[in-house]
Amino acid sequence: MPSSETVDLRVGPHQHGRPAVPSRARWRPLGLDEVTITGGFWGDLQALNARTMITHVEGWLERLGWTGNFDAAVEGRLPRDRRGREFSDSETYKLLEAMAWEVGRTGDADLDRRLRSIAARVAAAQEPDGYVSTMFGRPGQQPRWSDLEWGHELYCIGHLVQAGVARARTFGDDEIVRVAIRAADLVCREFGADGPQQGVCGHPEIEVALVELYRVTGERRYLDQARLFVERRGHGVLGEIDFGPQYFQDDVPVREATVLDGHAVRALYLASGAADLAVEDGDDELLAAVTGQVLTTLARRTYLTGGMGAHHEGESFGADFELPPDRSYSETCAGIASVMTNHRLLLQDGDARHADAVERTLYNVVATSPAQDGRAFYYTNTLHQRVPGREVAPDEVSPRAASSLRAPFFAVSCCPTNVTRTVATLGTYVATVDDDGVQLHQYAPATVRTELTAGRTAALEVTTAYPHDGRVTVRAVEAPAGGWTLTLRVPAWAQGASVTLADGTSQAAAPGYVAVPGPAAGQEVVLDLPVRARWTFADPRVDAVRGQVAVERGPLVLALESTDLGQDVAAAVVTTDAAPVERDGAVLVPVATRPLPDVTWPFGDDPAPAPDAPRLVPLVPYHAWAERGPSTMRVWLPTV
Amino acid sequence: MPSSETVDLRVGPHQHGRPAVPSRARWRPLGLDEVTITGGFWGDLQALNARTMITHVEGWLERLGWTGNFDAAVEGRLPRDRRGREFSDSETYKLLEAMAWEVGRTGDADLDRRLRSIAARVAAAQEPDGYVSTMFGRPGQQPRWSDLEWGHELYCIGHLVQAGVARARTFGDDEIVRVAIRAADLVCREFGADGPQQGVCGHPEIEVALVELYRVTGERRYLDQARLFVERRGHGVLGEIDFGPQYFQDDVPVREATVLDGHAVRALYLASGAADLAVEDGDDELLAAVTGQVLTTLARRTYLTGGMGAHHEGESFGADFELPPDRSYSETCAGIASVMTNHRLLLQDGDARHADAVERTLYNVVATSPAQDGRAFYYTNTLHQRVPGREVAPDEVSPRAASSLRAPFFAVSCCPTNVTRTVATLGTYVATVDDDGVQLHQYAPATVRTELTAGRTAALEVTTAYPHDGRVTVRAVEAPAGGWTLTLRVPAWAQGASVTLADGTSQAAAPGYVAVPGPAAGQEVVLDLPVRARWTFADPRVDAVRGQVAVERGPLVLALESTDLGQDVAAAVVTTDAAPVERDGAVLVPVATRPLPDVTWPFGDDPAPAPDAPRLVPLVPYHAWAERGPSTMRVWLPTV
Repeated sequence: MPSSETVDLRVGPHQHGRPAVPSRARWRPLGLDEVTITGGFWGDLQALNARTMITHVEGWLERLGWTGNFDAAVEGRLPRDRRGREFSDSETYKLLEAMAWEVGRTGDADLDRRLRSIAARVAAAQEPDGYVSTMFGRPGQQPRWSDLEWGHELYCIGHLVQAGVARARTFGDDEIVRVAIRAADLVCREFGADGPQQGVCGHPEIEVALVELYRVTGERRYLDQARLFVERRGHGVLGEIDFGPQYFQDDVPVREATVLDGHAVRALYLASGAADLAVEDGDDELLAAVTGQVLTTLARRTYLTGGMGAHHEGESFGADFELPPDRSYSETCAGIASVMTNHRLLLQDGDARHADAVERTLYNVVATSPAQDGRAFYYTNTLHQRVPGREVAPDEVSPRAASSLRAPFFAVSCCPTNVTRTVATLGTYVATVDDDGVQLHQYAPATVRTELTAGRTAALEVTTAYPHDGRVTVRAVEAPAGGWTLTLRVPAWAQGASVTLADGTSQAAAPGYVAVPGPAAGQEVVLDLPVRARWTFADPRVDAVRGQVAVERGPLVLALESTDLGQDVAAAVVTTDAAPVERDGAVLVPVATRPLPDVTWPFGDDPAPAPDAPRLVPLVPYHAWAERGPSTMRVWLPTV
Repeated sequence: MPSSETVDLRVGPHQHGRPAVPSRARWRPLGLDEVTITGGFWGDLQALNARTMITHVEGWLERLGWTGNFDAAVEGRLPRDRRGREFSDSETYKLLEAMAWEVGRTGDADLDRRLRSIAARVAAAQEPDGYVSTMFGRPGQQPRWSDLEWGHELYCIGHLVQAGVARARTFGDDEIVRVAIRAADLVCREFGADGPQQGVCGHPEIEVALVELYRVTGERRYLDQARLFVERRGHGVLGEIDFGPQYFQDDVPVREATVLDGHAVRALYLASGAADLAVEDGDDELLAAVTGQVLTTLARRTYLTGGMGAHHEGESFGADFELPPDRSYSETCAGIASVMTNHRLLLQDGDARHADAVERTLYNVVATSPAQDGRAFYYTNTLHQRVPGREVAPDEVSPRAASSLRAPFFAVSCCPTNVTRTVATLGTYVATVDDDGVQLHQYAPATVRTELTAGRTAALEVTTAYPHDGRVTVRAVEAPAGGWTLTLRVPAWAQGASVTLADGTSQAAAPGYVAVPGPAAGQEVVLDLPVRARWTFADPRVDAVRGQVAVERGPLVLALESTDLGQDVAAAVVTTDAAPVERDGAVLVPVATRPLPDVTWPFGDDPAPAPDAPRLVPLVPYHAWAERGPSTMRVWLPTV
């Protein structure tokens, strides 16, 4: 096996700062130097990330001593001075990954300096053989690999590798890249086909990281190791736990499963890794299996918001159509993992359902997590808040899954760092390219500049106020010689969309993808999506929202808050005879209220008191709820 | 402090085999020698308990080695040979308690021999100072009282004390009684006001046991200790746990709480103990607090079945009106604890809501747990089974909370032993007495013989086919001199009930209690309760069952199973234009079905396909569901 010092990092302009780079794809992803979001909803969030969120997370990791654990390791103060849970190293790695993408995106020199400083502290804690963990392996700590079920060692190394990949793809060879490669090499030696360890990690993550490291370096051993991890799993290779083996997807082999099950983040990280592996290995059976699992999960186990994971217990998927809005777990990290997985599948099959899921989840889960000031986050994302949340103090660490008001940080704080690395890479979801043209999947004010084939450059400028307005104008700044195709996604909800070509002719655009002749330089194509507010009903199998209706506007799920109703939303009854009203940028719906009398027993012949006369009440975008203090909130509004 | 050898056990005929004996009460409880259930629903279950359930549980405790842990302790084989979870001792104690009540009820000599044999094994494992636990305190084990949050040491001793109380009340002085007293004395020394330990147990149970031991012995120190435990709690006296302090009711002092919260069994055992303490100490404020908590919990946090505990996570109560039928936790033990608590409050305040709750919970939670053959049990009691359950093999130990098909035993197996001790004492819930007469609360074929005051004996014979038929005939076999009052409970659902007096005149009987002149010897009073099947709707705040209806018949909740529908109950839609049909002893409702097409996304403009024409489909009593193999099941039936 070659020393890590001999690895060819393949870094250079062709890396383009792309998070996931399959070697074969129907549509090729673009990188941070090819797509620039120039403003609007996502531009604002990226600015908030740059201005506040990354610094906020960095500060909390220092304050809680989780990054300091690496210093404690170097100074021989472990385990005495260790802080945080067994997986806390991963938060520092996710922060490093976020910093790497952000430096790649903006060239921020101060952030680059902070990245290098943290990377040096991690590097100092790496042991000579490549092992790095502040939780295991030192005198007084449990031995390495002694708790694969819950120890998260490989999970942490997976995030380290993703940080290394991000730095390699945006900068090139660097200290954190070398740390990641040494750790990955250790994993291959320890867990390889002939290695002393033949297990897998209780939390998938190393798989997706190893495939990407293979893509960066071309070193086949990382891909082989990812395959070993994917194939070993599902045969009861991990020890028994109270939640049962489905919790960590060890009950059924990935290629035999038909739907995602168990812990949602675990299931989705595994699906991402398995999809990447299938692509690199030409394993079409595995790719088809993962695609089928994800499509079935979208059809039966996904909230209107795109959120995944119905159960607080085990942070897991529920049964098909079991999607209770109250206490919907819908972990922010599961939303991020769903975006990762659907993006990977979209690149392969071009199925608009994946891009629809990415859009829905970005607007209604990922963007819901951070507060508008970037200093507090949701870990879980309930669709129904029954009691007003408690204000969380700016210096308070919340339990893992509090879901009333956003909190500055959590005892299990996977979500804030995950949000920062995701927001830094939002550009990658906007557009793809093939030899014939450019595909636009997500609509934001943006510039796109890429090559279809060598020398055939397309440069586009996208102008839009989406999602507030449905018009998307795509202007060609530079057009490749010999003609090209512009492909635009029409979301599934966008019945009645139309596209106007450069010659001024209009045509209906059905949901899915519409391909039109790419405009010549200086010309434009205009897509009109009907974003007006609409009523949304659920399949009757989603029992928990029977007799209820939701309101969506474009890709946004809306919500009713007690702040606007003037009383507890438990009293609300809506009438759906007419469409929701749009007025002055707000969406209003007719809401009556009924009395909420004290009862001694809530079941009887007909205990529903009649509601009063309806009045128009404004809704808020779900991603913006709970920004005005404690409230009760409903996404699903009773009609009976 | 007196040695336990000097304790006056106050045993004798006046003990009457009564599980809970308050020294003051509006209505005095009767014991196993005063009420005999002679047949019918509850008589059959008591016969099954005697014939099968107790032996089944006894066999499993031997097979799994949980009772054998006491032998291992004696033989110095701990901790090496210890089996089961940290609280497994309590299962042996609950079995001993069940055996004691059952021997008291029937005089079964073989069972008495088995009880003594197990009691001797427990006694042998008791340490000289009275401590008894197979989990803590020996070389190689954690020290005593070192894990009050999760160790369950005091919880186990509480169940030991309850076994001792049962034996004292049904037999008199005996080995297990002495073991219990020695253990209780140790607890008083260790945890008393001046003791070295100032904590409480993570799982309440010792409180209710100590008050009852005080009632048996008259030794004030047990009551004082119960007060210390009740008053210490709620001030953050236990260490931090992931679930938060409300999990074990350590967030709010009992006398300040307004509703039951956290782990349901813990909350209800604590409520029972606090109510008992309040009664003995004349602490009306505390009694009013507990009563208010329980009534609010009945109004807002109780399933139609009487089940309590909405969350699998933390086995805990949900928010007000958060009562999802799918995965309703509704632990069997929480049902039992609710019966215990409501029975205690009923004795004090005579509020029929408590007796209604006891009836509802006995028929629809406690009776649901055991299979009709007495060899399998439910731990949780879901109101909606989405996927057919898996058959559990007769020799298979299930995870703690599997809720598809009944299982022979569980890794955490609190419920089967709890059912056996409860069924053995069912007679105590039937009737009470005061100086003026007898009150009948639960209707079963039974004989009652008690004294109102010294020498004034009432002997009654109750004849009924309730709950199948609504007629209850109460014949006086012996009537006290000078007249007396017969008080009959009319359940809240029994609109249109009537009572026919001994003179043949009839009068309407409104829900609550109806008091009539007690019949002379040889005369009878007849109560007619309208048990015909009825539609039951939920308060609109119970969002999870909006647009759905349940069917009840008398005190029984009914359910629709796929076995009867011929397809998945997800397809069912009922029409409620007419009352449910009763035919040949079965209840049938008009059910249409609608197609369940594959969907790619379950939300849209109106995805509900129209149902076909309705046909009459039989329902089953909820307590009897899943007796014909795996099925899907709903208590709440869609109407839209």
